[in-house]
Amino acid sequence: MKIFQPYKDIIASALNNDRANLFEKSLNESYGEIKMFSVNDYEKSKLSLSKPHDLEVMAQQMGVRVLSDQKVGHHPDFVHLKGTKNREYHNIISVFIDVKGSTNLYKKYDGDTVFIITDAIQLLGITLCKIFGGFIHRLQGDGLFVYFGGKGVDKKSGINQALTATSLFNSFLENDLKQLFESHGIERIKTRVGMDFGYDKDVLWAMAGTGDTSEVTTISLHTSLAPKMQQYAQSNGTVIGKNVIDAGEIDKDLYWSVEEERYIYKDQNKSFYYGQYHFNWLKFLKQLKYIATSQFDGAMEIKPSNPNYLEHLNSSNIKPIAEINRPWLKKE
Amino acid sequence: MKIFQPYKDIIASALNNDRANLFEKSLNESYGEIKMFSVNDYEKSKLSLSKPHDLEVMAQQMGVRVLSDQKVGHHPDFVHLKGTKNREYHNIISVFIDVKGSTNLYKKYDGDTVFIITDAIQLLGITLCKIFGGFIHRLQGDGLFVYFGGKGVDKKSGINQALTATSLFNSFLENDLKQLFESHGIERIKTRVGMDFGYDKDVLWAMAGTGDTSEVTTISLHTSLAPKMQQYAQSNGTVIGKNVIDAGEIDKDLYWSVEEERYIYKDQNKSFYYGQYHFNWLKFLKQLKYIATSQFDGAMEIKPSNPNYLEHLNSSNIKPIAEINRPWLKKE
Repeated sequence: MKIFQPYKDIIASALNNDRANLFEKSLNESYGEIKMFSVNDYEKSKLSLSKPHDLEVMAQQMGVRVLSDQKVGHHPDFVHLKGTKNREYHNIISVFIDVKGSTNLYKKYDGDTVFIITDAIQLLGITLCKIFGGFIHRLQGDGLFVYFGGKGVDKKSGINQALTATSLFNSFLENDLKQLFESHGIERIKTRVGMDFGYDKDVLWAMAGTGDTSEVTTISLHTSLAPKMQQYAQSNGTVIGKNVIDAGEIDKDLYWSVEEERYIYKDQNKSFYYGQYHFNWLKFLKQLKYIATSQFDGAMEIKPSNPNYLEHLNSSNIKPIAEINRPWLKKE
Repeated sequence: MKIFQPYKDIIASALNNDRANLFEKSLNESYGEIKMFSVNDYEKSKLSLSKPHDLEVMAQQMGVRVLSDQKVGHHPDFVHLKGTKNREYHNIISVFIDVKGSTNLYKKYDGDTVFIITDAIQLLGITLCKIFGGFIHRLQGDGLFVYFGGKGVDKKSGINQALTATSLFNSFLENDLKQLFESHGIERIKTRVGMDFGYDKDVLWAMAGTGDTSEVTTISLHTSLAPKMQQYAQSNGTVIGKNVIDAGEIDKDLYWSVEEERYIYKDQNKSFYYGQYHFNWLKFLKQLKYIATSQFDGAMEIKPSNPNYLEHLNSSNIKPIAEINRPWLKKE
């Protein structure tokens, strides 16, 4: 998608830093200077990584509550528990986003370049989650642990927002980055997402740890299951728990059972079998009214800020032409 | 070990909270009140969890530099990088401690009780790491990501300290808790540790993330390998990377190859094969001069604060008797 282009450009520049490439360049440009994409260059490029406006408008239309207070480990809805013995039960969506394969980068790149590539990917993950109402609970190596929902957010909306953010992130790695990595002959970086929802009675919020070595966190089977589900996800895929389907009222054609392990948690004594499901994030995105899909190659694009502007065209002659010639569609 | 008794007592009390046990109690004590070990009781018990004095003395004798400033994600040696574009290369020991099996607790216990059990275990992990010079970089569910070493700490000492802290933690779960969980008929909680060392040139320190959603962290193959190695560890075991052996000058009889996957990282083009090894933490602990082992049942105990007090006894008649009747040895 076009909104991801600045991130893709940064990663493309960094990928050119590999030694073989630099050597080849030095042969061709005998008199030229061999130019690396440095961390300083990266820091300059980052300034252009403003929040994608189209996504912000989309989030606004979805009624997202954006959490501006994002101190890791201190969810603003529950930060009053910090330093106290108090506890509270409240529903939440737990999302674990893992980024796999970055150790392979060390085969071709130095630490600075690995930093640029992994940091840019993580930064996009953070940005997407924040735009769609997520709270970044923890940076975990290249990965992220994120809460969606919270006080005053109804569960169906929260789940929808979490699925939107993670699906866009999957899409970035699958559609925008995959080919880029392959063209450099390196094993591609991929994401795996696990997501589960815990109802009020099943999620305890409390302070864990002691003093400054502490965070406000959830003690919940469903928080624990999110990273476990992540392990069953396909490359650039998402696995969701049964509660996500029920509370999120997810359409039947958007998920299918994880055949390898249908139940991520079994308690035979209580006859409690908790299912996990692959989520069809591509189909989900394509169904969103904010997303346009090219009739030619299936490429997706965010519709411009006013999603209904075609409606304003009254001429029945212009409308059919305009519907085909959508300028915001990338036709590669 | 006796030093772990207060933690063990708390977990034992919480394990009695299971419903079956409470039901049995209610039959036997028809007139008595059924008493749960509540989170409030836990908070009171925590006050008795002062730092084990004997361990602190041991750490002092080892020359440990204790880091009192322990704000997660903000290592005091590198916190000046926060909010800047600056980077720095510096060696470090990366330790990932995972605590496995806690989801099974939800089969018998409510959220409050799961919180008490997992929090007490994590708290001991934090305490042990801090006493032996570790910096708690991140709480990760029940697990911990910890750095050892840092500025002014020589690599051999830092590695020795990291191995001491994690070996004691393994010992707690293997020797003190294992039987306790088994007696309650629940799958036991176990730990797995991965540890690797990165030399100066291989560890880049920088700020990851953005704004408050950030931490000062390392970009290093060896930081990435620590959690990977953890996956190969035996229950309550530790896997260490080749660098730990070399820089820590670890005795040959204290480790053996992970047969399942001898090399945790392979780069065929560079003929770089990086080995991983099981660490014999029990043997390591028993060799420490601060640890006494019972001649009767092999139980270990920390020696009292003055480890050489036997030397002060000049009577050749008393010494042999005193050596057998060591009152600090738990003889179960």
